[in-house]
Amino acid sequence: MKQSILLVLLVMLIGCGSGAGTGETATPEGNGETMQLRHVVLFKFTESSTPDDIQRIEEAFAALPSQIEVIKDFEWGINNSPEGLDKGFTHCFFVTFDSEEGRDIYLPHPAHQAFVDILLPHLDDVLVVDYWAEK
Amino acid sequence: MKQSILLVLLVMLIGCGSGAGTGETATPEGNGETMQLRHVVLFKFTESSTPDDIQRIEEAFAALPSQIEVIKDFEWGINNSPEGLDKGFTHCFFVTFDSEEGRDIYLPHPAHQAFVDILLPHLDDVLVVDYWAEK
Repeated sequence: MKQSILLVLLVMLIGCGSGAGTGETATPEGNGETMQLRHVVLFKFTESSTPDDIQRIEEAFAALPSQIEVIKDFEWGINNSPEGLDKGFTHCFFVTFDSEEGRDIYLPHPAHQAFVDILLPHLDDVLVVDYWAEK
Repeated sequence: MKQSILLVLLVMLIGCGSGAGTGETATPEGNGETMQLRHVVLFKFTESSTPDDIQRIEEAFAALPSQIEVIKDFEWGINNSPEGLDKGFTHCFFVTFDSEEGRDIYLPHPAHQAFVDILLPHLDDVLVVDYWAEK
C-alpha cells in the first residue's frame, strides 16, 4: 500500500517535471493554457521568381490568420543574419497554434492549400520544424 | 516652402509605412520599441552524440539568457512536425534581441563562445536565420 502511494507520488512528480519545461516533445496536457505550438517555415524561392511573385506569396501567407481561426499568432520576416548559415533560405514565417489539433486543422485547410498552390511554382526549397514552447 | 512641408510629410508617411509592417529587411528606427529581432537557430547533432551530450547542450544554451543581457526573450523545443520537411534538424532555439547592436554583442560574447565550444564536437549541421518582427 505504501509502495502504491510512493509510486503515485513519483508519477505525479515526473508528470510535473515534464510538463513545466521547454523542449517538450509530446503533447502537454492543457497545452493551450501554458504551452503553445510553434510552426517555423523557411522558404527559398526559385531564381526565376520575380519580386512581384514573392510579394504575392508573402501577402497570401500573411492573409491566412484572417482565414484560419486556429492560427493564434503569426509573424514573418526576411533573413538578415550576418552569419551566412541560412542555406539560401530568405523567408521565415512563424505560426503559433494552441494544440496539435489546431495544426491538424491548419495543414489540410482549404485556405492553406490555396496558398500552397500560389507558392509551389516559385518554391526552390522549404524547411519546417515545429516545437512546443512555454507561453 | 510648401514643397518642403509636403516633402517632410511624404518622408514621414513612407517612414510609418516601412516601420509598421513585418517582413522588414533594414534596421527599423526605434526598433526596440515596436520591433524585435528574431534569431532562429536549428541544430542537427552527430550520430555519436549521446542523450547526455545533447542535454548538456540544451542546458548550456538555455543558460545564456541569464549570462547575456541583450537576450530579451528565449525559448526552444524539439521538432515534432509531422510534415517530414525538417532536413534532419531536431532542435530549434528562438532568441530575441531589441536591436542589431544586441545581436552584435551576443555573437562574440564570451558566454556564447563558451557555449559554441560545448556544441561544436556534437554538431552535424546548423541553420540560422534572423528577421525583424512586430512586437
